[in-house]
Amino acid sequence: MTMVRIDWLDKVIDRALEEDLGSSSDLTTSAVVNYNNDLSSDNQGDHLNSSTFNQGEQGKQGTGMITAKEEGILAGSFVVTRVFQKLSDQINCQILIPDGQRVLSGQDIMQVTGPLAPILTAERLALNFYQRLSGIATETRKLVDLITPYSCELLDTRKTTPGLRPLEKYAVRMGGGTNHRMGLYDGVMIKDNHKKASGSITEAIRRVKNTVGPMVKISVEATNQKEAEEAYQHGADIILLDNMSTNQLVQITKKLSGKVLLEASGNISSDNISEIARTGVDYISSGSITHSAESLDLSFNLVEF
Amino acid sequence: MTMVRIDWLDKVIDRALEEDLGSSSDLTTSAVVNYNNDLSSDNQGDHLNSSTFNQGEQGKQGTGMITAKEEGILAGSFVVTRVFQKLSDQINCQILIPDGQRVLSGQDIMQVTGPLAPILTAERLALNFYQRLSGIATETRKLVDLITPYSCELLDTRKTTPGLRPLEKYAVRMGGGTNHRMGLYDGVMIKDNHKKASGSITEAIRRVKNTVGPMVKISVEATNQKEAEEAYQHGADIILLDNMSTNQLVQITKKLSGKVLLEASGNISSDNISEIARTGVDYISSGSITHSAESLDLSFNLVEF
Amino acid sequence: MTMVRIDWLDKVIDRALEEDLGSSSDLTTSAVVNYNNDLSSDNQGDHLNSSTFNQGEQGKQGTGMITAKEEGILAGSFVVTRVFQKLSDQINCQILIPDGQRVLSGQDIMQVTGPLAPILTAERLALNFYQRLSGIATETRKLVDLITPYSCELLDTRKTTPGLRPLEKYAVRMGGGTNHRMGLYDGVMIKDNHKKASGSITEAIRRVKNTVGPMVKISVEATNQKEAEEAYQHGADIILLDNMSTNQLVQITKKLSGKVLLEASGNISSDNISEIARTGVDYISSGSITHSAESLDLSFNLVEF
Amino acid sequence: MTMVRIDWLDKVIDRALEEDLGSSSDLTTSAVVNYNNDLSSDNQGDHLNSSTFNQGEQGKQGTGMITAKEEGILAGSFVVTRVFQKLSDQINCQILIPDGQRVLSGQDIMQVTGPLAPILTAERLALNFYQRLSGIATETRKLVDLITPYSCELLDTRKTTPGLRPLEKYAVRMGGGTNHRMGLYDGVMIKDNHKKASGSITEAIRRVKNTVGPMVKISVEATNQKEAEEAYQHGADIILLDNMSTNQLVQITKKLSGKVLLEASGNISSDNISEIARTGVDYISSGSITHSAESLDLSFNLVEF
Amino acid sequence: MTMVRIDWLDKVIDRALEEDLGSSSDLTTSAVVNYNNDLSSDNQGDHLNSSTFNQGEQGKQGTGMITAKEEGILAGSFVVTRVFQKLSDQINCQILIPDGQRVLSGQDIMQVTGPLAPILTAERLALNFYQRLSGIATETRKLVDLITPYSCELLDTRKTTPGLRPLEKYAVRMGGGTNHRMGLYDGVMIKDNHKKASGSITEAIRRVKNTVGPMVKISVEATNQKEAEEAYQHGADIILLDNMSTNQLVQITKKLSGKVLLEASGNISSDNISEIARTGVDYISSGSITHSAESLDLSFNLVEF
Amino acid sequence: MTMVRIDWLDKVIDRALEEDLGSSSDLTTSAVVNYNNDLSSDNQGDHLNSSTFNQGEQGKQGTGMITAKEEGILAGSFVVTRVFQKLSDQINCQILIPDGQRVLSGQDIMQVTGPLAPILTAERLALNFYQRLSGIATETRKLVDLITPYSCELLDTRKTTPGLRPLEKYAVRMGGGTNHRMGLYDGVMIKDNHKKASGSITEAIRRVKNTVGPMVKISVEATNQKEAEEAYQHGADIILLDNMSTNQLVQITKKLSGKVLLEASGNISSDNISEIARTGVDYISSGSITHSAESLDLSFNLVEF
Repeated sequence: MTMVRIDWLDKVIDRALEEDLGSSSDLTTSAVVNYNNDLSSDNQGDHLNSSTFNQGEQGKQGTGMITAKEEGILAGSFVVTRVFQKLSDQINCQILIPDGQRVLSGQDIMQVTGPLAPILTAERLALNFYQRLSGIATETRKLVDLITPYSCELLDTRKTTPGLRPLEKYAVRMGGGTNHRMGLYDGVMIKDNHKKASGSITEAIRRVKNTVGPMVKISVEATNQKEAEEAYQHGADIILLDNMSTNQLVQITKKLSGKVLLEASGNISSDNISEIARTGVDYISSGSITHSAESLDLSFNLVEF
Repeated sequence: MTMVRIDWLDKVIDRALEEDLGSSSDLTTSAVVNYNNDLSSDNQGDHLNSSTFNQGEQGKQGTGMITAKEEGILAGSFVVTRVFQKLSDQINCQILIPDGQRVLSGQDIMQVTGPLAPILTAERLALNFYQRLSGIATETRKLVDLITPYSCELLDTRKTTPGLRPLEKYAVRMGGGTNHRMGLYDGVMIKDNHKKASGSITEAIRRVKNTVGPMVKISVEATNQKEAEEAYQHGADIILLDNMSTNQLVQITKKLSGKVLLEASGNISSDNISEIARTGVDYISSGSITHSAESLDLSFNLVEF
Repeated sequence: MTMVRIDWLDKVIDRALEEDLGSSSDLTTSAVVNYNNDLSSDNQGDHLNSSTFNQGEQGKQGTGMITAKEEGILAGSFVVTRVFQKLSDQINCQILIPDGQRVLSGQDIMQVTGPLAPILTAERLALNFYQRLSGIATETRKLVDLITPYSCELLDTRKTTPGLRPLEKYAVRMGGGTNHRMGLYDGVMIKDNHKKASGSITEAIRRVKNTVGPMVKISVEATNQKEAEEAYQHGADIILLDNMSTNQLVQITKKLSGKVLLEASGNISSDNISEIARTGVDYISSGSITHSAESLDLSFNLVEF
Repeated sequence: MTMVRIDWLDKVIDRALEEDLGSSSDLTTSAVVNYNNDLSSDNQGDHLNSSTFNQGEQGKQGTGMITAKEEGILAGSFVVTRVFQKLSDQINCQILIPDGQRVLSGQDIMQVTGPLAPILTAERLALNFYQRLSGIATETRKLVDLITPYSCELLDTRKTTPGLRPLEKYAVRMGGGTNHRMGLYDGVMIKDNHKKASGSITEAIRRVKNTVGPMVKISVEATNQKEAEEAYQHGADIILLDNMSTNQLVQITKKLSGKVLLEASGNISSDNISEIARTGVDYISSGSITHSAESLDLSFNLVEF
Repeated sequence: MTMVRIDWLDKVIDRALEEDLGSSSDLTTSAVVNYNNDLSSDNQGDHLNSSTFNQGEQGKQGTGMITAKEEGILAGSFVVTRVFQKLSDQINCQILIPDGQRVLSGQDIMQVTGPLAPILTAERLALNFYQRLSGIATETRKLVDLITPYSCELLDTRKTTPGLRPLEKYAVRMGGGTNHRMGLYDGVMIKDNHKKASGSITEAIRRVKNTVGPMVKISVEATNQKEAEEAYQHGADIILLDNMSTNQLVQITKKLSGKVLLEASGNISSDNISEIARTGVDYISSGSITHSAESLDLSFNLVEF
Repeated sequence: MTMVRIDWLDKVIDRALEEDLGSSSDLTTSAVVNYNNDLSSDNQGDHLNSSTFNQGEQGKQGTGMITAKEEGILAGSFVVTRVFQKLSDQINCQILIPDGQRVLSGQDIMQVTGPLAPILTAERLALNFYQRLSGIATETRKLVDLITPYSCELLDTRKTTPGLRPLEKYAVRMGGGTNHRMGLYDGVMIKDNHKKASGSITEAIRRVKNTVGPMVKISVEATNQKEAEEAYQHGADIILLDNMSTNQLVQITKKLSGKVLLEASGNISSDNISEIARTGVDYISSGSITHSAESLDLSFNLVEF
C-alpha cells in the first residue's frame, strides 16, 4: 500500500489553509468564539487563541460530528485529522468509520473534540478534502463491484487534480482500485502521439529499450490488433487497448492473454465495464473516477458547545 | 475582474509538474523524441533537450491541437499556455476560442506549436487544468442561463478544490457567475455553528461588529424568517437563506427585499434554480458548480510532426 | 480580533533567524556558552547544543529579563515567545505584562528561562520584533487617546513594512486602533490615480460595481466636497477625505454624516488629530503609526546564570 | 560594496506582493483600468491583464512620477525597479536621481512608464520600500555629516527590521555609513551577557580563540577602562565602548588608540555624536539609524494616462 | 535518456549560491572588480552590479577558461552553464568538449565570456559541480570499459549525495552506466532487512504482489543460490546476487540466465569487475562510483580581462 | 564550535527524503512490513503507517544496528538521528560512539529502535549522510595527525558538495580540522583572478579596504615571496602561499612568520603535509578532504524484528 509523505501532506494542507486564511485569520470565528468584553484579557486572547497557538490557550471547548448525507465509500480520514491538528494539537479526531468502508446516509463518521475556534476554522477545508476523496472512492468502488466476478482490476490514470495526485490515488485504492504509474518518471507509456513522433511502435519501443534501465516497465497504446501484436513482439510489458469494441478485445485477448498484460481503456462507465471485463483483459483503466467524480455529501455540526 | 497572481500560478504549475516528473523526467518522451544513435551528440542532447533547457535546443518541432469532444464553456487558456511555456519558452500557444465562450463538440480550441518533446510532456497536465476549469465554467453557465430572466446572480462558495480556489473562482466568472468571498479573511459569514457557539444571531453580530474594521461585510445564515429578520435588524449586509422552501423565500423577500441583500442556498440544481430565482432573492449560491462539476472532455493530438 | 496564521509566523521567524545565523551558527554563543576543554564531550556538545536541537541537551541554564527602558504600550509578546521557542522548546517565556497594556520605564515585561545558549542567540531578534511592534502600539495609543472623547476611530493603512503587515496591523489593534483593509484583495479603494485612469469617480465606481461580488466594500478618495457627494450618490460605502481643512471636513460631515462612512486622512499627527476628530468624521487614518513609529526601548539582561 | 543576491530579493518582493494581493488580485485596479463593456473580450482581458502576464497584453499605457515631498538621501531605486518589473516586464523605470544622492522637496526621482494596471498595483509596495530605505539613508547621512571632520566612521548594528537586513544595511552604505557584521555567523561579539555566562572577558576570549578559525574577527564590549584593557591584552580586534562618558572615552583612546580598533556606542544622536567622534574613537555605532528612522515622504502620481 | 527538471535544478543552484553568498554578497569580487573612486557612480554601481542584476550593467568584461588538470570523462556542462547564467544572463558559456567525452590533462573544456564580477563569483560553485560530476563519470567509465567485452551493464545505486541524486545519476549515464531505480517510489527491491521483517522471500514477494500495480518491477536480493531460485519461482523480475563468489555466480547464471535478470553487487572494483562480468550476469551494480568517486581536477583562469 | 541551524537541516533532510520517496512512498517497505490480510484494518493501516504519521501507529517494532565495516572517525550522528526521527518520532537512536571519535571495523556505532517501517525507509538516507561525513572526518584526521607535532592547523576550503557545506565543515571539525571562511560573504580572499582583474595585489587590497567594514579579515593568495611581502605591507591578515616548494615556504616564514598569518595550499596529501608543516606556516588548507574523501563503509542490519 503506497503511503503519503508527511512533509508533502503538510505543505498541501498549509497552502490550502493559506487560501482560506491569508496570512491572517478567520474573521468570523475569531470575533464570535473568543469574544470578551474585558479589554486586557481580550488582547491577550488575540494571540493565545487556539487557532493560532497550541500552547496554553483556554478557549471555549466543544465537539462536532462529521456525518454522511448520502451513501458511499470513505477516504481521507487521515487528511481530515491532519487538517484539524494543524490548527490546534489539542483537537482530537475519533474515526468512527475508517477509510475504505461503506457509510450509509445519516451515519456519523468522525467525532472532533477540542477548542471550538480552530475546529470551526478548519471545518470547511476538512470537508473539502473528505468529500472529494470519498467521492473518488465511491465512484471507484461502483466500478470495481461490477468487475469483481472477473479476474480483472480497475486502474486509475494521470487524469487527477493538479497538486493532489497522491491523495487521489490513495482514494482509488480505498475504493478497491489499483494504481497505474504515478507520473511520467516511473514507467514508460508509448501513446499515440509518441508513435507519431517516432514513426512506429517498433521504433518507439526500440528507442525506449535503448535508454531506460532494467527497473522500468513499458506500456504501449494500441488502437487495433495489429498494433497490439507489434507491441507484444517488441517486448511491451503491458498493452493498452484504447477505445476498442468488445469484439476487438475478445480477438486480442484470445491471441495475447497470458503472454502480456492487457489493459482496456476509453469511455469506461458503469454501463459497459462488466462487458469489457468479460473479454478477459487483465486491467481496465478509467480517468473519470478521478476527474469527474462527484463529491460525497458530508456535513459537520457542533453537538456540544 | 479578479486576476491571478503570476508567482502564485507558477508555483501551482511547478508543483503539478513535479508530481508528473519528480526531479527528473518524462521517461517516454525523452527516449522516443530525442533519440539519436550517435552517442556523442546523444549525450549532448540529453541536457540540451527542450524539456530541460529553453536555450539553443534544436529538437524535433511539431504542432498539436486541443479539440473539444463535447459542448461546453471554456476556462483556463492562460493556465494551459503557462504550463506549456514552463517547459519551453519556444512553445507558442494560439488561442482559437477564448475563455468564457461556448465551444461545440469537434471544434479546435488551441493550437500548440514548438519543440515536440516539451509539448508531449506538458500535454496531460495542460488538459487536466483545462478540462477541470472548463467543466466548472460549463456547469456554472448551465445554471446562470436558467436565472438570466430574473435579477438574480449565481454565487460560488468556499467548496473548492484545496489549492486551486483562485483558478476555480476564475472559472466561475467565465461561466457567468459572481464570486462570493475568497476565504475566511475577506468577509464575515455567521453560520449555524457560529450561532451555536455564541448563543444567538444577535450576540454573534454584536461580537463581530465590535472587532472588524469598516471594510468588512457581514453575512448571516438564517434558517427561518425570524432569524432573517433578527439578522436584518442587527445590521447584516447579506442574509443567507439556507435550505428554505420557495414559500419561505417568498415570505422573506416580501419583507426584506431591497432592505438587505438576500441569498438562497442549499441543494441548488438545474431542477429548482429558476423557481428559486423567481422568489426575488438577489443571489443564489451553489457549491456543486465547483465541487462536483464533471470535467469537459478535451483531446490533444499532434497534427504536424 | 484578527489573528496570525502560525505557519506564516514560523516562516517569518525562520527567515529572520536565517538572516542572523546563515545556515550555521552564532559564533560567539556557541564558543562562549558551551565551551568544554574535554575534546570528546566537546565534540558531542557541538551538535547537541541547545541552539540546534531541543532534545536531551544538558547545556548551562539561566534566566533573562526583558525590561522597558521607556514608557509605552506593549505588542508582540507571542512573537517573542515563538522566537525563543524556535531555538529551543525548553525555553519558557513568562509574560509579566501582556500586549495592549502600558509599561513604565524600568518595569520588567517578560522573564525568559531555559538553556543559556539559545536564549542568547535569540535575544536580539526577539527584541527587534518586540521593540518595533511596541513602538507601533505606543504611537497608535498616543493618537487614539487624543480622539477618545469623540465617536471616531483610528485606522491604519497599507504603509507597513513589506513582509510584516499582519504583525504591524496586530500592533495597531493593541494600541487601540482599527484595521483598514489588509491588502488590495479584500476591499476596493478608488484613489486619485484610479480616477485619472478611468476618467471620473462615477465611471470608476460603475466599473467596480460591475465586477466585484456582494461581499466587497467600496471606499472612494475625495479631494473636495463635490467629489465626496459624487461618491456618495454612486454608492460608495466609505469616503476618504484626503488632506482637507477642518472647515472642509465640517461642511462634508454636515451633509453626509450618518449616510455614508467618512474617513479623514493626510498628515495626521498629535497636533491636529483632536481637531479633526471634532469635525464628526467616523474614522481618521494614519500611515505614520506604522511607517515612522520609533522603536520602544527595551533591554534584555541575564539575571541568573 | 556589498550587493544583494537577486534570488533573495525576488523572494522578499514576492512575499510582499503576496501580502497585498493574496493569491488573487488588486480588486480596484483590475476593475477600473481594464474595464470593458464587451463581455467576451473582457473575459479575455481578465487573464491577459498586464498585472498577471507580461506577454502580449495591450492594456492602457501611462506614466507615473515618484517625487520627493521632503529633503533627504535616496536608497532603494533598484528594489523599486524590481517591484514594478515583477508585475510587468513592460514597465520601464528611469532613475532620475540615483541612490546615495540628496533629493530636495519637490524633485522628481523616478519616472515609471508602461501598462497602467500593474503600475497602479505596484505603487504602494514600491513606495513602502523606497520611503523606508531612504529614511534610513537620510538618518545615516545626518549623523555621518556630523563626524566627517574626524577620522571616525559610523557603523550600523543588528537592530534591523526582521527579514530586511541586507536592504537596510545597503541603505546605511548609501547614507555614508559602514556595515558592522551582517549577523551572528560572520564575526564574534562578546557582549555583557556573554561575559556573565563565561565568568570574565578573559575566559570568553580564550574560549572563542579556541574554536573559531583564522578568518573571524573578535569584538568585545567593555563598560569601563579596565575591561577595555583586559580585552586588548587578550587579543580583541575591536573594543566596543558602551555608554561611556566622553571623559572615559578620552582616557581609553589615549591608551589604546592605534593598538586596537575602538568603537563607541549607546544612545548616539545628532546631539552628542560630534563630541564622541572628537574623542578619537575609530567607529561610532548606532541602532536608531535602522530601527527608528522615519520614512522619507515620497509620492507617486500619474502624469500621463 | 533521463533529463533533469529545470525548476528542480534552479532550486539546487540557488541553494548552493545561497551557501556561498548568504543573502548578500561576494565581498572580494564586489570590492575588487567594480571599484570606482567616483562616489556617485559607485553608489549606482552597487546595485547595478552584474552579480545582482542582469539588465543594463556595464561592468568590466572578460573571458575565463575551464581546463582539465587530469584525464577523465566530463559531465555537468549544462549545470555549469546554468550556474554562470543564474548570476548574469550576459555570460556566455561555450562548451568545447561535451559531456560524456574524454578530456586529457591540459585540454580546455569550456570558455566563459561576459561581465567579470559574476564570472568570478560563480567560478568555485561551477567547478564544485563540474569536478564532482566528472569524477563520477570518470569512475563509471573506468569500470564500464572493463566489462565492455561482456554483455553486461554497469548499474548505479541509491548511494548518492543527498540532494544531488538526479545529477549524479546523469553523470553515471555520461560515464556509460545505466540507471537503477531512482528512489523507493519507482521500483521494489526486497533486501535482507525486508526478508527478516516478513519472514521469507516468498512471503515478501507475495505481499508486494498484493499491493503494487502492474507498472512496478520487483527486484529481490539473494545471498545464495537457494534464495535466488526462490525469488525466481515467485516472480521476481530481477535478482540481486549480493557479495557472491564468482563460483556462486557461475552456478546461478547457469540455472537462471535468460529466465530472469541477474545483477551482481558488493565490493565491485576495477580489480574484480571483469571476472564478475565473465560469469554471465546481466548487470553489475556499484555504489562507489557515486559515493566515493574522487573529483576530477579542473581549473578556471581568466584569459582576457 | 559552529553549529547547524535546525530549520536548515530539516529542509536538507526533507529534500533528500523527497528524492527517495517522491510525494508518495517506499513501495517495498509499505508492502512488506505493514501487510495485513484483513482488508478493513489494512485500509486503516495504509494511512496510519508509521512512515506516514507518528501518532498512534501500532506497526511492527524492531531494532537495527549501524556498524562500522572499516576503521575511521565518525561524524554526523545528529543528522542520522534527525533523519530517522523525521520519519517517526517514535524511533529512538542511541549513539554508542560519538562524533569525533575513532571507530574500528566491526564496532557498533548506533542502535535504532522503533517501528520497523520508517526505520527501513530511512536506512539508506541515514547511511548516505553518515558515511560521507565520516569519510570527510576520517580523511581530515589522517592529515591532522601528521601535523600534530607542529604548531600548524589544517584548514578546509570552499570545495564542498553544493548544498551540504555546513555539514561538511562540521565533519572537518570532527576530524580535528579548523574551518576557513564559510562563503564569499564572511571574509575576503584575493585570489589570482582578482589580482588580474584589478591589476595588482596592492590595488586589490586598496579597493577592498575602501569598502569592507571593520569585522572583515583579508586573505591574499601569493605565488612567490615578492607577492607575499607586497600583501603583508598592504595589510593582509592572512597570506595564502599557493603551490610553493618547501624551500620557498621556508624563505617566507623566516621573513613573515609572527607578523602575519601564513597558510600553505596546493596538492596537499599525506605524502607532503608533514614536510610543509615543518616550514613553520600557521595553516595548511586542503580541498581534497571535502571534495575527494571516500565514504566510510558502514552497514545497517536489523537485530530484533
